[in-house]
Amino acid sequence: MTVVMNAQDLQAFMREVFQQMADDFAVDHVDEEGVTMRLLTAERHLRPGGTVSGPAMFGLADVTAYLVTLSRIGPKALAVTTNCSIDFMRKPVAGVDLVAKGRLLKLGKQLSVSDVLIYSEGSDKVVARASLTYAIPPSGV
Amino acid sequence: MTVVMNAQDLQAFMREVFQQMADDFAVDHVDEEGVTMRLLTAERHLRPGGTVSGPAMFGLADVTAYLVTLSRIGPKALAVTTNCSIDFMRKPVAGVDLVAKGRLLKLGKQLSVSDVLIYSEGSDKVVARASLTYAIPPSGV
Amino acid sequence: MTVVMNAQDLQAFMREVFQQMADDFAVDHVDEEGVTMRLLTAERHLRPGGTVSGPAMFGLADVTAYLVTLSRIGPKALAVTTNCSIDFMRKPVAGVDLVAKGRLLKLGKQLSVSDVLIYSEGSDKVVARASLTYAIPPSGV
Amino acid sequence: MTVVMNAQDLQAFMREVFQQMADDFAVDHVDEEGVTMRLLTAERHLRPGGTVSGPAMFGLADVTAYLVTLSRIGPKALAVTTNCSIDFMRKPVAGVDLVAKGRLLKLGKQLSVSDVLIYSEGSDKVVARASLTYAIPPSGV
Repeated sequence: MTVVMNAQDLQAFMREVFQQMADDFAVDHVDEEGVTMRLLTAERHLRPGGTVSGPAMFGLADVTAYLVTLSRIGPKALAVTTNCSIDFMRKPVAGVDLVAKGRLLKLGKQLSVSDVLIYSEGSDKVVARASLTYAIPPSGV
Repeated sequence: MTVVMNAQDLQAFMREVFQQMADDFAVDHVDEEGVTMRLLTAERHLRPGGTVSGPAMFGLADVTAYLVTLSRIGPKALAVTTNCSIDFMRKPVAGVDLVAKGRLLKLGKQLSVSDVLIYSEGSDKVVARASLTYAIPPSGV
Repeated sequence: MTVVMNAQDLQAFMREVFQQMADDFAVDHVDEEGVTMRLLTAERHLRPGGTVSGPAMFGLADVTAYLVTLSRIGPKALAVTTNCSIDFMRKPVAGVDLVAKGRLLKLGKQLSVSDVLIYSEGSDKVVARASLTYAIPPSGV
Repeated sequence: MTVVMNAQDLQAFMREVFQQMADDFAVDHVDEEGVTMRLLTAERHLRPGGTVSGPAMFGLADVTAYLVTLSRIGPKALAVTTNCSIDFMRKPVAGVDLVAKGRLLKLGKQLSVSDVLIYSEGSDKVVARASLTYAIPPSGV
């Protein structure tokens, strides 16, 4: 599928529409394969013990699936997550960012389906895996 | 299953072990059926438009499944979520708290399985539905 | 939500449109709360050891979610499952039917979301839990 | 992870322990990346219209996750599925086999987590995607 928003476009979109999101996440890379995102890990994302919390990982998976969808269809602020299944498999490494790789498995008129793998930066072991469905608003919205 | 931690016990446990969680969530009620929790909705939980964000709802489902498990097994700081499947079905009502009702479907030695229904306070329409698996640490941990 | 197809209607619909399904499943009961289905357990549904297999339980959850949707919208042969999350929690009791209770959590124009609890007949312990999304074809189809 | 059972070993194991499964599925390939399986599509797997049914695709995902686990840990008849999340994304092509590619994301002492992509033979479009958790029996069982 053709990429219609690159990393800079997606970053600018986040900053404009979801300011809070733009403080938490950075777009590392966009290509035909998908999107690579980064959680800019801060104190508010941590559990006691210093590892990233489940809700922060969910947020990373969610934004990655959202932006991989937008990278193919262009800016749609109103797309909403309808379903997510997530497996937490390993404790993240403390003190490093989390990196998420998302790819689009289906892009229909009404729905997109993506999957996301999350890693601790510098490791090739999967920390979490998620699949997400997004409802795409009708054209013109 | 017998309740071994009541609402006050769970609230005190959150405050002691997960201070950040205790700022976001309150335990409304605990009984044989399960646990009712409340997201103390604040600015940081909202998306543009003023409705509660997906990650905040995930966090509510997660803490509800965690505490319904602890209500039956007692305080275990180290239990971890291994899997969550969540459906987002309706936009939450703006300006009210979200209320989550969690019940335990299985309590094994190593795993608990719960499901959670999330409502906008004062409404009987389900905003989100989640099922979660927790890995329970061995006794003595 | 108003019931527009009762147990007899659903059974007749299965027999007419999905003959194979009608050999495997029976509709026990339909009311405002939802639909109760039964797997007519036969040799072909069993694993070695004599308990019902995972795919047979998936099939029971799937048909239950489908028929609880049809009970509200009328006969639509073309509705398709888009997502299922299922937890297998206990081994079914050997030698008895499985009973599934399905309820509709959301009925939108394009999607329905249901959850299903599966029991061994005569037991109140949950054997499996599933949530399913169905895509509803546009009117006139 | 080291492969301890190759395609022939897995096929022989199925035939010995799960005869019914061996009539439905074939092991195409096993390597460090994972396992490729095939549904030997027959009349009993089809819906009206001639495409493979949801339960048959679930069965394919389930056996693929099971065998990718065994390919790393050796023959364990008693491993059981505890959770599956599956997205059905496209109608399978009629008249061809379905092919599933499974890979192991985590292999712990008690649990394995896999994901599976299902294709119609000869197509590179994903028909279904699943993630599955298996509970591994203690050594000696």
